Amino acid sequence: MKVVTFGEVMLRLATPAHLRLNQASVLEMTFGGGEANVAASLALFGEEATFITRLPKNDVAEACIQRLRGLGVDTREIVRGGERIGIYFLESGASQRASTVTYDRAHSAISEINPADLDWETILKGADWFHFTGITPALSDKAAQAALEGARAAKKLGLTVSCDLNFRKKLWSSEKAGKVMGGLMEYVDICIKAGTTEVTEGKIDHGRYVEVAAKLTERFKFKGVAITLRESFSASHNGWSGLYYTGGKEHFSRRYDIQIVDRVGGGDSFAAGLIYALGKKKSARDVIEFAVAASCLKHSVSGDLNLIRLSEVEALLAGDGSGRVQR
Amino acid sequence: MKVVTFGEVMLRLATPAHLRLNQASVLEMTFGGGEANVAASLALFGEEATFITRLPKNDVAEACIQRLRGLGVDTREIVRGGERIGIYFLESGASQRASTVTYDRAHSAISEINPADLDWETILKGADWFHFTGITPALSDKAAQAALEGARAAKKLGLTVSCDLNFRKKLWSSEKAGKVMGGLMEYVDICIKAGTTEVTEGKIDHGRYVEVAAKLTERFKFKGVAITLRESFSASHNGWSGLYYTGGKEHFSRRYDIQIVDRVGGGDSFAAGLIYALGKKKSARDVIEFAVAASCLKHSVSGDLNLIRLSEVEALLAGDGSGRVQR
Amino acid sequence: MKVVTFGEVMLRLATPAHLRLNQASVLEMTFGGGEANVAASLALFGEEATFITRLPKNDVAEACIQRLRGLGVDTREIVRGGERIGIYFLESGASQRASTVTYDRAHSAISEINPADLDWETILKGADWFHFTGITPALSDKAAQAALEGARAAKKLGLTVSCDLNFRKKLWSSEKAGKVMGGLMEYVDICIKAGTTEVTEGKIDHGRYVEVAAKLTERFKFKGVAITLRESFSASHNGWSGLYYTGGKEHFSRRYDIQIVDRVGGGDSFAAGLIYALGKKKSARDVIEFAVAASCLKHSVSGDLNLIRLSEVEALLAGDGSGRVQR
Amino acid sequence: MKVVTFGEVMLRLATPAHLRLNQASVLEMTFGGGEANVAASLALFGEEATFITRLPKNDVAEACIQRLRGLGVDTREIVRGGERIGIYFLESGASQRASTVTYDRAHSAISEINPADLDWETILKGADWFHFTGITPALSDKAAQAALEGARAAKKLGLTVSCDLNFRKKLWSSEKAGKVMGGLMEYVDICIKAGTTEVTEGKIDHGRYVEVAAKLTERFKFKGVAITLRESFSASHNGWSGLYYTGGKEHFSRRYDIQIVDRVGGGDSFAAGLIYALGKKKSARDVIEFAVAASCLKHSVSGDLNLIRLSEVEALLAGDGSGRVQR
Amino acid sequence: MKVVTFGEVMLRLATPAHLRLNQASVLEMTFGGGEANVAASLALFGEEATFITRLPKNDVAEACIQRLRGLGVDTREIVRGGERIGIYFLESGASQRASTVTYDRAHSAISEINPADLDWETILKGADWFHFTGITPALSDKAAQAALEGARAAKKLGLTVSCDLNFRKKLWSSEKAGKVMGGLMEYVDICIKAGTTEVTEGKIDHGRYVEVAAKLTERFKFKGVAITLRESFSASHNGWSGLYYTGGKEHFSRRYDIQIVDRVGGGDSFAAGLIYALGKKKSARDVIEFAVAASCLKHSVSGDLNLIRLSEVEALLAGDGSGRVQR
Amino acid sequence: MKVVTFGEVMLRLATPAHLRLNQASVLEMTFGGGEANVAASLALFGEEATFITRLPKNDVAEACIQRLRGLGVDTREIVRGGERIGIYFLESGASQRASTVTYDRAHSAISEINPADLDWETILKGADWFHFTGITPALSDKAAQAALEGARAAKKLGLTVSCDLNFRKKLWSSEKAGKVMGGLMEYVDICIKAGTTEVTEGKIDHGRYVEVAAKLTERFKFKGVAITLRESFSASHNGWSGLYYTGGKEHFSRRYDIQIVDRVGGGDSFAAGLIYALGKKKSARDVIEFAVAASCLKHSVSGDLNLIRLSEVEALLAGDGSGRVQR
Repeated sequence: MKVVTFGEVMLRLATPAHLRLNQASVLEMTFGGGEANVAASLALFGEEATFITRLPKNDVAEACIQRLRGLGVDTREIVRGGERIGIYFLESGASQRASTVTYDRAHSAISEINPADLDWETILKGADWFHFTGITPALSDKAAQAALEGARAAKKLGLTVSCDLNFRKKLWSSEKAGKVMGGLMEYVDICIKAGTTEVTEGKIDHGRYVEVAAKLTERFKFKGVAITLRESFSASHNGWSGLYYTGGKEHFSRRYDIQIVDRVGGGDSFAAGLIYALGKKKSARDVIEFAVAASCLKHSVSGDLNLIRLSEVEALLAGDGSGRVQR
Repeated sequence: MKVVTFGEVMLRLATPAHLRLNQASVLEMTFGGGEANVAASLALFGEEATFITRLPKNDVAEACIQRLRGLGVDTREIVRGGERIGIYFLESGASQRASTVTYDRAHSAISEINPADLDWETILKGADWFHFTGITPALSDKAAQAALEGARAAKKLGLTVSCDLNFRKKLWSSEKAGKVMGGLMEYVDICIKAGTTEVTEGKIDHGRYVEVAAKLTERFKFKGVAITLRESFSASHNGWSGLYYTGGKEHFSRRYDIQIVDRVGGGDSFAAGLIYALGKKKSARDVIEFAVAASCLKHSVSGDLNLIRLSEVEALLAGDGSGRVQR
Repeated sequence: MKVVTFGEVMLRLATPAHLRLNQASVLEMTFGGGEANVAASLALFGEEATFITRLPKNDVAEACIQRLRGLGVDTREIVRGGERIGIYFLESGASQRASTVTYDRAHSAISEINPADLDWETILKGADWFHFTGITPALSDKAAQAALEGARAAKKLGLTVSCDLNFRKKLWSSEKAGKVMGGLMEYVDICIKAGTTEVTEGKIDHGRYVEVAAKLTERFKFKGVAITLRESFSASHNGWSGLYYTGGKEHFSRRYDIQIVDRVGGGDSFAAGLIYALGKKKSARDVIEFAVAASCLKHSVSGDLNLIRLSEVEALLAGDGSGRVQR
Repeated sequence: MKVVTFGEVMLRLATPAHLRLNQASVLEMTFGGGEANVAASLALFGEEATFITRLPKNDVAEACIQRLRGLGVDTREIVRGGERIGIYFLESGASQRASTVTYDRAHSAISEINPADLDWETILKGADWFHFTGITPALSDKAAQAALEGARAAKKLGLTVSCDLNFRKKLWSSEKAGKVMGGLMEYVDICIKAGTTEVTEGKIDHGRYVEVAAKLTERFKFKGVAITLRESFSASHNGWSGLYYTGGKEHFSRRYDIQIVDRVGGGDSFAAGLIYALGKKKSARDVIEFAVAASCLKHSVSGDLNLIRLSEVEALLAGDGSGRVQR
Repeated sequence: MKVVTFGEVMLRLATPAHLRLNQASVLEMTFGGGEANVAASLALFGEEATFITRLPKNDVAEACIQRLRGLGVDTREIVRGGERIGIYFLESGASQRASTVTYDRAHSAISEINPADLDWETILKGADWFHFTGITPALSDKAAQAALEGARAAKKLGLTVSCDLNFRKKLWSSEKAGKVMGGLMEYVDICIKAGTTEVTEGKIDHGRYVEVAAKLTERFKFKGVAITLRESFSASHNGWSGLYYTGGKEHFSRRYDIQIVDRVGGGDSFAAGLIYALGKKKSARDVIEFAVAASCLKHSVSGDLNLIRLSEVEALLAGDGSGRVQR
Repeated sequence: MKVVTFGEVMLRLATPAHLRLNQASVLEMTFGGGEANVAASLALFGEEATFITRLPKNDVAEACIQRLRGLGVDTREIVRGGERIGIYFLESGASQRASTVTYDRAHSAISEINPADLDWETILKGADWFHFTGITPALSDKAAQAALEGARAAKKLGLTVSCDLNFRKKLWSSEKAGKVMGGLMEYVDICIKAGTTEVTEGKIDHGRYVEVAAKLTERFKFKGVAITLRESFSASHNGWSGLYYTGGKEHFSRRYDIQIVDRVGGGDSFAAGLIYALGKKKSARDVIEFAVAASCLKHSVSGDLNLIRLSEVEALLAGDGSGRVQR
């Protein structure tokens, strides 16, 4: 399977070892962003993955491309130009203290992209799947237009199109999001979204999520809706499971109890797992189990990217979550 | 509110990442001490905070002053002189292995202070609150005398005086502590102490702590007694709550389950929260909730200092201990 | 008591902070190996401990010897020669992601040892105890022969002989292991092995382990059989207890709930604790309690070596697993 | 003396140990910028120094303010608002490989400042000196206007005004620079600029620099012109000296041979030394010697800021550049 | 131009900051080896570069491949199999203390390669250049045979063949080297070797090197012979220049005075520069100037790989070795 | 040869990478002190070396002992007791900025030693050489008395006694030093001292140093006087040579040009080299050449200890100071 993803990749500058920004003397330098994370995870699973974005011509962007290319992502179609690569600062939380993200992504190269710079027919040629998230259209009208053209071309060429809704309230209002995303949904086959479970409510209300999925399916004619179900006990400890709704039926995964190393990118690793499993024509139940197992493991990996191999997901699916030393 | 605190600040040399001292090639260099920690926390909450101590004229002490001043603490009244800054070595524990503190604080500048070097009337002018801990008088007779003069002047000038009893058995005997502290209590309005809950006893005996608070109040005519209630399950996992006793009534806070990053300074962050909340004329119940929430968050911060903003305490008080990423 | 251990010590190259190998820019350099770990732990408990191995003449091996000698291990009888020191790479896991060990130990100096290079009568002179593990004979026929000669000489000289079975499937087949180990068991007094509890089975089946111990005792005439009972909930959280079977009776230790810093070397620290306690003629119950407490603490220490002092084990045995700061 | 400086302070993200950006896993996080560097150096010399800029309300900007405040810079007049703090990435060069700076400073808070946000009469009240550089007006028309209003107000209030020309070709054209800077020069008393010595020419042409200074003086009626004379043999080795031209006479300093730790901020430390020495009414010769000695020492300090004490400059002036250990 | 290189790539474990192995707590993990270094440098110059080797199927080898792929090297033809990746330990020297390399490369995957595993006709299809070094045949007879087959196929297919003689006395005797290398030279067009200048002789004897080049040319009918001329004043300071001999005429480059960051890989960066410049059909003089400038810059880069861009080499060739900050 | 040294060993806390104390977030933790440095260097040269001091019973002192023991120093006679281990803070300088040492060694365990705690006859039994420095008697009267008793016993038992004068003006006055040291000199055979060459004087005045040595010899009847001749061009660059005066004749070594990594401990490594060479009965010329070569190499090693092997000194003596990579 060949998958094309489109969106923003940012320089991630994280404080080490749970430090606050005013304690840090160094920042850990990695790269991440919803669609890049999906592409990297799929490449590590052995799929062909192409990542499309726009990056400036400077050494920071170069380092980003080298990292993605090293992991096996095809970066040849990345458009070069613009002023800057988006940045986000991350303070990794613990216990009751939440991780905090400080965005510095305005005016990034991709937010100022000229949609015409992307020849989607060429880019998508030979591909099976197109993926984007709700963050890309939120970046700017130009980025939204580019995403729209990508989704439309993908649809036309017969690709499966998936979208992780990923609403970011700091990037746009819910009104604008509703309008723009509504237009995009027409081309989307598989819809992915994060649940909003509040652990203080005691238990996940499974019924409510089935309802949400059913309504979305009805309104936008999705082939499938996948929802991550996170129980946020603290910044260090989460419950993790998922729902896949397709053909009028719900499929819940098993639930994992997670000691968190890094939860950023958890949703993206779920999307990658879902795409992988759907591409392999697994059963609906196996699809959600795979996506949840893959993303469960992501929480133990530092950085945005899910540096987990297929064999590790399969071992967890086979029941080994014991963390015994592999030797 | 303007708060003045008086005591010792030490160079803290901690092994990184749970290493033992004989594994470490570097030591993390920060600064801390009961009263300095209280001043820093209050400054970060937006209050005026002045820290009084005595420090030698050398580069290590200079770095200490720069750190406190950077956080907004007024360091202009620090007396310069003496031979050395106190030091403590910290091995951060985990699970059943306790953190260990190796003190190297004898002969520190403050322990050899000449009480006459501090003109308390000038220092306390315009201040609302004076805070010290039971560590300061334990350092030396000179330091005890200076604390006594400070408390007496504060009382005379109409400030509220708080004291965190903080008995340190390595610094003095309980007999001497009883005698010296007894004399100081005459000037104290708010008494703070750590509970001594043994988790092996199964449950916190709330009644016992109310009794302790009532007796202290009776004996020393305190306006309020605050007690931290720590359940030490392991070096990695604690329960945390508190009691505030005032006007003949007890007020228990909610209880937090904490994954510990660093528990040193936990009590000091509680004191700072208490002082802040009392200064804001909050209700007794809100006072103890604020103090416990502030100090709960401290346990997720590396170092002695509670680098937590007011808004973060308020978010936790409002019920969000979920650790969800803030973005 | 003077204890001699014989086996391989390796350069351990571990990624920091739960990183995967393709994220790491540095590797943490320490040394470890079953028998070296036992010797180091015993030396830290105050016993005389001699470690026998073969190491090449190069700077890496020199650094290894200096580390062990620094901890008080007698390294004077180490044979120098051969091509290389064995290496293992460690990715430290977390939550559902297991730690992974990549061995690079083939052709190590000890695997190519000439058994005649070791004059066991001289080496064991004045010693009370000889310890080895099932890893040593698995390295090569030469190493197996050397272990056999060591065990035989020890028996002849009246030492107590202990063996930690430690089957490593990557080093040899279970058939060969059975045959070679069977021959060695004739000289062994105390047999140590890891239990194979699967946490998914819900509860440790204590009866099954008593049976295993009884059968081993019957077959090989052991004076005692010790079994570690690990409940692997995840790479971050384990249950830990043990069984000591001697004189036809079983003795189970209390059980500890562990937040893991590093579980590699856990079994070795158990063996060291067992040897120490048996050497002190403790009761069977005290022996297993000591071994389990010592190895419980190991899980909080980074690296293979159990850098725990006797006083710390004793404090835990006395009931303090609260992790309260020691100051 | 009280000095006010106005300009941009940036987050500086430098690769450690001469690494290239595509080798780095962490970036060293410090802060710097021409006018902030001058303020910090003066504060460390014991002068009152106020730094004026505009910074957003986020944790990165907060850390910046804490660093400057810690060093004794008055940061109370910093305007808060805007989108982002400017950033620059630094690869530290060595030998023939030059250090490279990648700017990411567009759209910074100060570049979008509303000149009316700065009430210069209040800010400059009680001050003796106003300093800015040619970088500030290059940031944007708004920043240029703010600088102009500051310089004008300073002149009106009787302060001495200094400007470090610091032409940055990536920020504006030389035509625009000429026009804008020309207008500003009317208010400037002391002009500072970097020489452009090419070491390949063999020797510094002292006469040429005297000519440049004389012409500038004639055209803009400066009280003094100071020029740094750097001989760039390589990124690791420079010659360093300076010229101060005043009252129609030139004064050259002695020349230092420098092994470079970090040359970024070298010119700013020269400006700070010059301002300090002029403020102390030193002779023209002593002024240039002080400025050159102070900035010579800066090259041995990592980061933009000249963390050098007065006593160290004085020791070098007194002839001790031997680098003997001070103990 | 498309270049194929064949040889061993090793895990390089270097002590940081000039530490000795017995001081280090971490080792810097990078990868390098003569032919891999050449491929990486060419890829960074913008050429198509394919690296051929044999690597085991493990995480360390995976990390190596990701690094090279990230830099743009085509790694798709790397044969997977064998036991281990070769390793070398590096202590970086300074002043009179030489850097020391401890090899641990015996039994590496490539040394046990089956020459038949490489289908050279396929691998070399479409390529213009084949490069190897004298290290490859020194690894083992199998590796020598593979190199021979590669060189022979390259010749047959009309590629230019270059070889860097690189005699390593720890890998084989000079007798065996002479015999094996002699056989290989038949296919070589461009011969590269390190000079053996002893700085204690005062001056480089240019005539002697011309003689060496002439003799090699005569004996093996090389189209060109390139010799690096290193003056080793100390581990921190070298002189660097080169000779290219072709068509019966010698061409010496200019000479650079280098402050060394890392000299390992210096010769490989020279080879890459030479190949690049020859591929661009530069004049003999320009060829040697390019190769020397490229490798001069390598000495300022940490690690084996020459992470220098074409534009940087060109700037140095244009005369800018001043190390001025690029901004 | 068996050498016993007596003095203070301190915890050394150094800023990394030339940072100033107010920039450092970690301090590098090593151990050093004149006599410990000599013992460690001799042990690494293969001699038996015993180090005598007094250290408290805490984890920091334990780590110190483990480091020395690891290097092969006999630490069994170290007296345990007292309050603290001495500490010194080191800022590593560069170019014109000198390294600075901040001592925090008052009240150290050795300064409060009871001379009767050392049974010199037992300690020195079987030894050939006793070494101390002028720092030990400067610590306190008790330490001076202990040194005196050691020297006296050594003399009586027929050992050679050496003393490195090492005047430290922060520890005592030159009057007191003169008096105390004068009394000790009676037992000293070999006197070592640092020259006081001022590089600004242009050239080392060899005659003056011969005179100094001759006078010392005359006054105290030394068998030999050794003087280090350091030319301090800067903190990064020194000249280094030495003089050995014996039997009325002077012997100057060759001179080395040194790029400095760490010059602390340079004099101690010279003393160790001298003792080693004298013990080997080398000629006077060879003695000074060996001492100077050994200590030249020390300057390339980080930390107080001279982690240089005999073979490396011999290679330098044989003329190889080229720093070529050893592989």
